[in-house]
Amino acid sequence: MKRLRLLTPGPVNLHPVALAALAQPQLHHRSPEAGELVRDLRERIARLAGTVGEAVLLGGSGTAAMEAAVRALFAPGARVWVPVAGKFSERWCEIARAAELEPVCDAYEWGSAVPPETVPTGPLDGALLTHSETSTGVLQPLAELSARVRERHPGALVVADVVTSFALAPVRMDAWGLDAAVLGSQKGLMSPPGLAAVVLGARGLKRLRPAGYYLDLARELRAQRARQTAFTPPINLIEAAAAVMAALEAADWEARFARVREVNERFYALGKTAGLTPVPAPGAERSPATAAFYLPRGMPYAEVSQAFAARGWRVAGGQGPLKGRILRVSAMGYFEDGELERAWRDFAEITARLR
Amino acid sequence: MKRLRLLTPGPVNLHPVALAALAQPQLHHRSPEAGELVRDLRERIARLAGTVGEAVLLGGSGTAAMEAAVRALFAPGARVWVPVAGKFSERWCEIARAAELEPVCDAYEWGSAVPPETVPTGPLDGALLTHSETSTGVLQPLAELSARVRERHPGALVVADVVTSFALAPVRMDAWGLDAAVLGSQKGLMSPPGLAAVVLGARGLKRLRPAGYYLDLARELRAQRARQTAFTPPINLIEAAAAVMAALEAADWEARFARVREVNERFYALGKTAGLTPVPAPGAERSPATAAFYLPRGMPYAEVSQAFAARGWRVAGGQGPLKGRILRVSAMGYFEDGELERAWRDFAEITARLR
Repeated sequence: MKRLRLLTPGPVNLHPVALAALAQPQLHHRSPEAGELVRDLRERIARLAGTVGEAVLLGGSGTAAMEAAVRALFAPGARVWVPVAGKFSERWCEIARAAELEPVCDAYEWGSAVPPETVPTGPLDGALLTHSETSTGVLQPLAELSARVRERHPGALVVADVVTSFALAPVRMDAWGLDAAVLGSQKGLMSPPGLAAVVLGARGLKRLRPAGYYLDLARELRAQRARQTAFTPPINLIEAAAAVMAALEAADWEARFARVREVNERFYALGKTAGLTPVPAPGAERSPATAAFYLPRGMPYAEVSQAFAARGWRVAGGQGPLKGRILRVSAMGYFEDGELERAWRDFAEITARLR
Repeated sequence: MKRLRLLTPGPVNLHPVALAALAQPQLHHRSPEAGELVRDLRERIARLAGTVGEAVLLGGSGTAAMEAAVRALFAPGARVWVPVAGKFSERWCEIARAAELEPVCDAYEWGSAVPPETVPTGPLDGALLTHSETSTGVLQPLAELSARVRERHPGALVVADVVTSFALAPVRMDAWGLDAAVLGSQKGLMSPPGLAAVVLGARGLKRLRPAGYYLDLARELRAQRARQTAFTPPINLIEAAAAVMAALEAADWEARFARVREVNERFYALGKTAGLTPVPAPGAERSPATAAFYLPRGMPYAEVSQAFAARGWRVAGGQGPLKGRILRVSAMGYFEDGELERAWRDFAEITARLR
């Protein structure tokens, strides 16, 4: 049976250079070549994240990096603000609780943008923010939220989940005042899942505390500054991600950001023609990583996903309160020549029959 | 530059079916095929580990699985025995300390087997044991150590690192009284690093406590029983490892264990001819995962490893107190036709010139 091509907001269809890297004979992670790959990928990530700071690679999912950042930057009892407007901001809240912080988890409508003026005025040690909220398709106003936190709480650390904005939209850590940002390999980097990173700005680097063992960022940072890793890293995935970043850099990031946005907006335009309501509320910026639509009332998601599967595509549904109620597609992965056009055509034909 | 072939005790040369799995289009981890792979690999691992219990897959290295097991099975303050006779048993001790247990870390000569009669008689909540101590080449008497712990401390939980014995030598969790065992993908499973597992016996399953977030075994177990994973798993590596296990099972495990041992003993025989002293002390059982030799006094390890590199091989040196003093080779990975014979010949020629 032919495997479905992915129109999902992560994982995504692999970039050919990622596949080529995975076809190589196994590299030893203590070899000079591996050390060079670690250095190269760390530098590329920090540069693209817009910081003079440093990236720390971790073997695990984006969630592993979220937890590592929280534990390394905040002591138990720390008061952190978490605006919750979707599944991934909710996850920040859960992780903060598991790490015994005292999160202030403020609920917002799923699909809405978090208004920067709602940053609390009470004492705060930090904020855990989400850039692209993949569960709703909203690109949160990260620069504004961060600026407001920094203005009201100069000592607070600002940590952002850029899992589905990194390499897909501009992320400017230093300009926006972000002290740490977390990302994963299976989104804009078009590589398999299993590799994550925490990017630390200058303040983030200074405020690292030892925490745990495997996810201890301070330990990893020491090792990675020496072009090593503290433990056996997913070196094949590091090689894949480094190859993809090199290929994308050669072609210019700004052009890619514009293209990813344009491709995603095309889905929104087709959805509009079909009479579908976008999940991002009016006024909320749309993430380029996914186009999310409410399904017509009474239309089961399973039926929709089966229609896509019949044409060779895997799409995504909703999570949490949106489960069964929405359809999400994404073109942030790699597409062969003509494949994207086929995706748009199939999307248009399937959604036209939904109402 | 051609990449060196690996004669290292992990990572190892990939099995062709692992490479074939990695060449596939990206699979979505929430697809039915992925759920089936998770189920399949979990079942194969538990069966080969010799338990009626269950395996829990984790995205990360073997160290991640070690930490997950320690935190899930012991509360802070728990008194656990850790016989330290090499780098990996030392790691158990460090992880136990990081998790705020009260480990009793007893030091043994590196290269020695831990005598079962040295199991402490004082109160114990558990023991953290190492099966194949990859840093010295010793296969510790795990069955005897576990039996002695269970006899003296019936309520204590026995946890074993089987990272370089799993799929290379018999591991019989239930027969030996092991409550948990941890393993990784880049050793006997001949897959890339980045996937690990904790196998839980019946008592281990019953005694799980929630711990942390990303490495929380209880959460993962709940998800994996439903053929899901709690977070995005390294599904490409799961597919690779499942394919290798299926291929090896088709060819009979006992034959493989015998073959791996025979291949490794061939290195020891060649080393003896060259006048090299094995690192495993007389009387200690040798792990089939690596052959370890003391270098002649004054012979720099770098010179030896360069001699191997000149012939296309990467070998390993020593760690901790053995750094610079020993040579380790391993043939636990995959070798093409005639490649192993070439490895033996090159090993014989290089070691003959060492004295």
